[in-house]
Amino acid sequence: MATQDELKQQAATQAAAMVQPDTVLGVGTGSTVAFFIDALGARNRQTPLNLQAIVTTSNRSRQQLEANGFTVSELAAVDHVDLCIDGADRVDHDLNGIKGGGGALTLEKNVAINATHNVWIVDQSKVVDRLGGFPLPVEVLPVSCEQNFRRFDQLALQPQYRLNEDGSRYVTHYGNYIIDLAVDPLPIPAGLAALLDQTVGVVEHGLFLNMTDEVLIATPEKIEHWTRQ
Amino acid sequence: MATQDELKQQAATQAAAMVQPDTVLGVGTGSTVAFFIDALGARNRQTPLNLQAIVTTSNRSRQQLEANGFTVSELAAVDHVDLCIDGADRVDHDLNGIKGGGGALTLEKNVAINATHNVWIVDQSKVVDRLGGFPLPVEVLPVSCEQNFRRFDQLALQPQYRLNEDGSRYVTHYGNYIIDLAVDPLPIPAGLAALLDQTVGVVEHGLFLNMTDEVLIATPEKIEHWTRQ
Repeated sequence: MATQDELKQQAATQAAAMVQPDTVLGVGTGSTVAFFIDALGARNRQTPLNLQAIVTTSNRSRQQLEANGFTVSELAAVDHVDLCIDGADRVDHDLNGIKGGGGALTLEKNVAINATHNVWIVDQSKVVDRLGGFPLPVEVLPVSCEQNFRRFDQLALQPQYRLNEDGSRYVTHYGNYIIDLAVDPLPIPAGLAALLDQTVGVVEHGLFLNMTDEVLIATPEKIEHWTRQ
Repeated sequence: MATQDELKQQAATQAAAMVQPDTVLGVGTGSTVAFFIDALGARNRQTPLNLQAIVTTSNRSRQQLEANGFTVSELAAVDHVDLCIDGADRVDHDLNGIKGGGGALTLEKNVAINATHNVWIVDQSKVVDRLGGFPLPVEVLPVSCEQNFRRFDQLALQPQYRLNEDGSRYVTHYGNYIIDLAVDPLPIPAGLAALLDQTVGVVEHGLFLNMTDEVLIATPEKIEHWTRQ
């Protein structure tokens, strides 16, 4: 039986094989994505892919991409993204997911929504029957954070500010706070997403619904490959 | 016949009379709101209102409030807002409006949505039969601004980046850009608002629908007083 890392490696290699030459690639973040970047670099060194551009969602991935010889662009500077490879914190059997555990949900969603095709690579521990088992991150403007915290509390969504190790509030790349909703499982994800979209002071949330097209799942036995029906 | 400034002054005085002692007040921005702040200050000097707190949506109003002896708080620091007095760039007969000509739409909407009661004071030039006659401001994250600009263009919404006098892009208090939608009149405001709410990369937009409760309108003859049915 393969180790967890060997399975992630296999999923990453499959994902790297999906990248077409001369296209624009989006690259997310996460432990499996880290294997993907190295697999992509190895493939590119063997046969140059001549990618038009690569955009990414974290400094960590940017550094790893650059270490593999790739040049990284800003999303606003590219005309389109053909394929985005990212991880997910949870994914259900309808290919809906929760993302943003790392705090970069806003950038991740902006890249994903502008990609023609999205693929998530995850290990089996991320697969759930109902979206839950992981707090849903909501990025909020500081100006009305207390009002929104109370609103979420009144809706029994079990809000908690994300904190740094020193107890101070975590601040996103955009200068905002993250309120994690601990309610589990999430009550009617599509309804919750619509409510959060309409909530003034919410910049973005970690519900990624109807957004990914394929999921590669590293299980102890094999790589499962799910495709949106 | 009264001058325009005399009429704004009358509307402002009526609005100042709506403020109840010992409450939390929200104060917006604009030429009529400037008259309101002075009228409120005069009233408060005559008979102290002992307001619990005042929040506002601009530095200009903050300075004028402080010059009138008021202390200004941050929205996140107050438990609630009882009444918010603001202007509007356009208002229709259903009391829906366009706001954000000054670029502070996000803060304005955050204060308004958290106020129990909202009153707009405007002059007659702001009243329209159909929402239009004024570009609709949309605050967008720089990361995906080009993608959203093209999206708005494809939807025939006539997007234009808001620029500073030197031709550089206007940057909001939150570090974002404003794309003004010049389409006139706005096609189905409620539908457009829902679309913008759901658009990834849109922080906020200037459609204020079902949000204000009363409007005071300075016409050449009198102060009209509209109340949400």
